[in-house]
Amino acid sequence: MMATVNENFLKLQAGYLFPEVGKRRRAYQQAHPEAKIISMGIGDVTQPLAPAVIEAMHKAVDEMAKKETFRGYDDGGVGYEFLREAIRVNDYASRGLAIGVEEIFISDGAKSDTANSQELFGLDNVVAVTDPVYPVYVDSNVMAGRTGPMAGQGMYQKILYLPAKVENNFVPDPPRERADIIYLCFPNNPTGAVATKEQLKKWVDYAAQNESILLFDAAYEAYISDPSIPHSIYEIPGAKEVAIEFRSFSKTAGFTGVRCAFSIVPKELRAGSKSGESVALNPLWSRRLCTKFNGVSYVTQAGAAATYTAEGKKQIRAIIGLYMNNAGVICKTLTGLGYQTYGGVNAPYIWLKTPKGFSSWEFFDLLLEKANLITTPGVGFGPSGEGFVRLTAFGDPDNVKEALDRIARL
Amino acid sequence: MMATVNENFLKLQAGYLFPEVGKRRRAYQQAHPEAKIISMGIGDVTQPLAPAVIEAMHKAVDEMAKKETFRGYDDGGVGYEFLREAIRVNDYASRGLAIGVEEIFISDGAKSDTANSQELFGLDNVVAVTDPVYPVYVDSNVMAGRTGPMAGQGMYQKILYLPAKVENNFVPDPPRERADIIYLCFPNNPTGAVATKEQLKKWVDYAAQNESILLFDAAYEAYISDPSIPHSIYEIPGAKEVAIEFRSFSKTAGFTGVRCAFSIVPKELRAGSKSGESVALNPLWSRRLCTKFNGVSYVTQAGAAATYTAEGKKQIRAIIGLYMNNAGVICKTLTGLGYQTYGGVNAPYIWLKTPKGFSSWEFFDLLLEKANLITTPGVGFGPSGEGFVRLTAFGDPDNVKEALDRIARL
Repeated sequence: MMATVNENFLKLQAGYLFPEVGKRRRAYQQAHPEAKIISMGIGDVTQPLAPAVIEAMHKAVDEMAKKETFRGYDDGGVGYEFLREAIRVNDYASRGLAIGVEEIFISDGAKSDTANSQELFGLDNVVAVTDPVYPVYVDSNVMAGRTGPMAGQGMYQKILYLPAKVENNFVPDPPRERADIIYLCFPNNPTGAVATKEQLKKWVDYAAQNESILLFDAAYEAYISDPSIPHSIYEIPGAKEVAIEFRSFSKTAGFTGVRCAFSIVPKELRAGSKSGESVALNPLWSRRLCTKFNGVSYVTQAGAAATYTAEGKKQIRAIIGLYMNNAGVICKTLTGLGYQTYGGVNAPYIWLKTPKGFSSWEFFDLLLEKANLITTPGVGFGPSGEGFVRLTAFGDPDNVKEALDRIARL
Repeated sequence: MMATVNENFLKLQAGYLFPEVGKRRRAYQQAHPEAKIISMGIGDVTQPLAPAVIEAMHKAVDEMAKKETFRGYDDGGVGYEFLREAIRVNDYASRGLAIGVEEIFISDGAKSDTANSQELFGLDNVVAVTDPVYPVYVDSNVMAGRTGPMAGQGMYQKILYLPAKVENNFVPDPPRERADIIYLCFPNNPTGAVATKEQLKKWVDYAAQNESILLFDAAYEAYISDPSIPHSIYEIPGAKEVAIEFRSFSKTAGFTGVRCAFSIVPKELRAGSKSGESVALNPLWSRRLCTKFNGVSYVTQAGAAATYTAEGKKQIRAIIGLYMNNAGVICKTLTGLGYQTYGGVNAPYIWLKTPKGFSSWEFFDLLLEKANLITTPGVGFGPSGEGFVRLTAFGDPDNVKEALDRIARL
């Protein structure tokens, strides 16, 4: 008799998507040391932090150097009041949305939050995802035991996959079947699609009718340019009763290497217990955080708060503008070359249809070998991603231009 | 039919220990606004970061301000090579211990690591803890569903509690019963006890015989002054086959507000699967991290690496010396006043026997009301902690002196 392993981990496919992409990149680079590889693959940013953020982080480091201003544990691990208040005012109150400070929980990343939030729920819930989808939603549920093994076509048993295709503009309607927990991500990773108010209303109504929970990932809301597109699920009436929202500073302010994000868990949100009561999720999330997490670095939180100052806002808008300019150039150039692209207007992702006859990984390999470009194979995000690759707009403009020149020469 | 909640969360007792202590403190302060409360309760540090750390963090912030030196995602979320290599050399190779860089995983805190590591294991494993114990070990297993509800005397069903008492010098022997996963913490939080090489060897032998796993929390190893006491479980032959080790910069270098820690998951370590194979845990932990975590802030990791420079080492030794001086003064003074104390020699915690007739919470309340001192009630760490309170040595020396004067006047 031996201590036993979590069998659910063994259901996972061999490699998480991005490490597999990295492995192929390294193998190619090793075989071709002279190749100047350009990455449009993993969604990592390239521009430095905004000056206001840098200044705030230096100031915070100096505070940590003096006994009088030194900061230790962030009480309860839920985030400093100064940052939660800045979020309340700037991300919500400014849009007329009443989110309280005690509904805002600071974390080290939207990956952590989207992966950990499933812990609040029983293993008997039916999970639905749009397909293709950020692999973390699915994999975290696999690891928890909320799915069966992988069945045919890259789909885990018991998960409800909702295909996002050209035919539905990559925004699936709620299913006829009941789902308990539904992951939605708009602006979408990987397709770059956005959902209108009407489309999100269908989802909020579905959740209200079915007493389901929406896990709404809004990590890319800062990239929305169309004023009619909602930035928050809470712009839909009734959403506070049915939805958790995830936000991040990673793409909004270039924090991929700084690590800060937050979740909104409304006080109204409840799930059922076996004894037939309904249980508020806000105190449960708070309890989860204070038991398993000790908060985010003070220096990081100080930097995040600086993105809400007048200077900080202006500076991060300029960086987002640079990336969205990349997106525009990518879409225009590729369309001109005869490729079919989606997204890239209200999102930093471009969803590129592979040329006829090419699977996702085949086109990935072609671009790596013939153009020394890294993309992300669409099928890595789910079976409906087959026949696409994802490009990101987070490159340096010179590299983006060079990448497009190489594709033109293919 | 409603989305269901994780019923295991509902088994948890009302409040995590430290928030409850905080609540009583705030209530007292509100009723007595003039009271100058001194905290010897929550294990938070008071001294500022070492100058070498501050300098490294400023440098790292400056690097984040320039495109050429900007850092995004830390690939795979397992930590930068520069920090893992510094750990390998200074914490392990320097003691003759062969730990590879790929066995070292950087995280945001030992709380996260000790709470998350249980995810590697099946729900059918029997968990053992020493009692009293850091509540995170127990609560994370409760939340995962590895226990029954709380039964009598503050103990959860299915968990094996091993009493740490005066009679065994607070170091329990391995039990006669089989346990699959055993949490050990030496130097111990909360008792301040340390385990000798011989005592740890009994545990490694027990784990080898029973094919059990030791989860060894060495967060306080920097406080060991006795050269015969092991700093790492890997000082015991055979431990790489049976143990994960947790370390932290929180108490070693005052990082409670900076957030950095690491785990060692040896390549030799394996657990069993239902199909009868044995599965290596190192790649599973790596997979868990890259799926649910995106690494630690570059600025934080740069600061942590600075603790391994010649200057950094000297500076953090001086701060640890200051805290251990506090510990010595606390033990000596309280002993002189007729109190019975334990710990405080190789650990920053003093385990104080309450006066005859006082329960942990009664003595906590007495010290709060009559001396305006915050301690931590021993019973909050488990039933065998009843009749004790925990004092920490992390105060400012002036406050420690004042606190002891107040106790003398009781």
